[in-house]
Amino acid sequence: MRKIKIISTGKYLPKKIVSGIEIDRILGLSEGRSAQMSGVESRHYVEDESASEMGAYALMAALEKSELNYDDIDAILCASGTAEQALPCTAALIQRQMKRPDRSIPCFDINSTCLSFVTAMDVASSLLETSRYKTIAIVSTEIASVGLNPNEHEAYSLFGDGAAAVVVSRGSETDRSRVIHASMKTFSEGSDFCKIRGGGTRFHPSKYDGKSEIFQFSMEGRKIFKMVLENMEEFFNQSLSDANIKLEEIKFVIPHQASASGMELVRRKLKIPLEKYVDILKDHGNMIAASIPLGLHYLVASGKIARGEKIMLLGTSAGVSLGTLILEY
Amino acid sequence: MRKIKIISTGKYLPKKIVSGIEIDRILGLSEGRSAQMSGVESRHYVEDESASEMGAYALMAALEKSELNYDDIDAILCASGTAEQALPCTAALIQRQMKRPDRSIPCFDINSTCLSFVTAMDVASSLLETSRYKTIAIVSTEIASVGLNPNEHEAYSLFGDGAAAVVVSRGSETDRSRVIHASMKTFSEGSDFCKIRGGGTRFHPSKYDGKSEIFQFSMEGRKIFKMVLENMEEFFNQSLSDANIKLEEIKFVIPHQASASGMELVRRKLKIPLEKYVDILKDHGNMIAASIPLGLHYLVASGKIARGEKIMLLGTSAGVSLGTLILEY
Repeated sequence: MRKIKIISTGKYLPKKIVSGIEIDRILGLSEGRSAQMSGVESRHYVEDESASEMGAYALMAALEKSELNYDDIDAILCASGTAEQALPCTAALIQRQMKRPDRSIPCFDINSTCLSFVTAMDVASSLLETSRYKTIAIVSTEIASVGLNPNEHEAYSLFGDGAAAVVVSRGSETDRSRVIHASMKTFSEGSDFCKIRGGGTRFHPSKYDGKSEIFQFSMEGRKIFKMVLENMEEFFNQSLSDANIKLEEIKFVIPHQASASGMELVRRKLKIPLEKYVDILKDHGNMIAASIPLGLHYLVASGKIARGEKIMLLGTSAGVSLGTLILEY
Repeated sequence: MRKIKIISTGKYLPKKIVSGIEIDRILGLSEGRSAQMSGVESRHYVEDESASEMGAYALMAALEKSELNYDDIDAILCASGTAEQALPCTAALIQRQMKRPDRSIPCFDINSTCLSFVTAMDVASSLLETSRYKTIAIVSTEIASVGLNPNEHEAYSLFGDGAAAVVVSRGSETDRSRVIHASMKTFSEGSDFCKIRGGGTRFHPSKYDGKSEIFQFSMEGRKIFKMVLENMEEFFNQSLSDANIKLEEIKFVIPHQASASGMELVRRKLKIPLEKYVDILKDHGNMIAASIPLGLHYLVASGKIARGEKIMLLGTSAGVSLGTLILEY
């Protein structure tokens, strides 16, 4: 039993909104083509915002909606697929943006690419269960726009920037909120299907011209779809079976917002009813690890989910990894 | 109580050894100057090795020394301050290098810069305690050499490359091996003292010439020392007091191998006897997050530490963070 209660959620979306038509213009496509390809009609792109600023704004927004304040938080976990700097970790930079130097709470990053938030919730539930921490801020903050390759139309059409934050604690003795089951698999023979090769120690920026495509996101969409579809059904059914839960008992499934076609293929394969399937792709694009917590935020903020109801987070990520986390809200 | 048993440890050091004299030559210093500045007489630099290869070799070495094999591992945590690629996470790349595509175990990265291994041990102890995983491979693999700035003599003299891996499980019912206490603080008003600004989303490689110093490690040594010294004594004493343990009961303290002068200042300030203080700096340099598990590896491999004895991991990192983890081996 790993008790974890979602106390509150918050988001920050960059001020600048970029329509599909603007993407069409950048890529030299006919009007409507990028939205048709990706299912994304508009997304946010940063102008002057940094990842840590967005993360701090999202956390402040989450705290505003709760009875807690920043003094109650005893750790910041940044759960993002991209980093603000090569060093130090983004969580420390988010702490700095909170502008409370008296609060020297521990900061670290958890990264499993687009699954980072799901992994962080999973890890946080163990950290709370063992009383290592009492109240944790999990922040996913992503800037995808800087790494897109205009020669890869599908991927370029797909991504957006933004941040989401979720404050979690163990809850009271009578709270039933908990992780019912979590599961993850990494199929690293596909680690090359979805990547940004450069920027780290292998293809270090000092060895390449800044214009090199090596620093841009590259995706072999068909290969990654094939790998996900081949493994997802068994993985998903095993998760439900291990959790001893039927899909009918789950109120909402929040999938990673990979792409409209990818999400729909997965939904059909897993026979998830449309009304259960949280879809925020159209106005946000794929926001890497921030997609799932943003979906969760909209569920919570809209009042669509009530305490005692069950949610499944269903992630796919570069790696290639699959992840589920079934929780009672 | 968080039971965690160190089953085995392993290392990989790059084939190429670089002496202090070679560093003197590169930097145009008089012979012996770089070793005098940093306390590092030689270190390893990668030639053809990647971070994920080194990590996999270290893990293979750890497994060879144990009764377990790779089939017993049910998660790979990469605990490094540097990443191999901007995306996906390094743990997935390490799994790939294990060349066992049938083993689709979960992979994710934990990053608190030089404290990453300490954080990963801390997190792993909770994951084991809640039975989320049974046996975890923690791998720290770092390539510092690609990001050094020849205009920053002190930092250039200091760093080395390499990897260390530690396999942990919960142990048997009768095992006493456990985390006695773990503590971390992040003082992010110092997040600028020790950094690689570029490479992430803020100073993206596409916006800079590859020769830009923005992609190189930069350290304000004095400021970071001052911040560490101002906070370390209280932090350290609080850790001992929270653990209800006296320094005399601890057999070995494994500090982050920050620099000879930094380590000595901390040791004196904390009144840690020389014979308790693990120092592997001279032949390895500062290996970022791999320094502490490599120190642990040498303790274990040399038979200097026995079951039932207590060890303290004592980290400092960019962020700026302090961390301790007191464990019964």
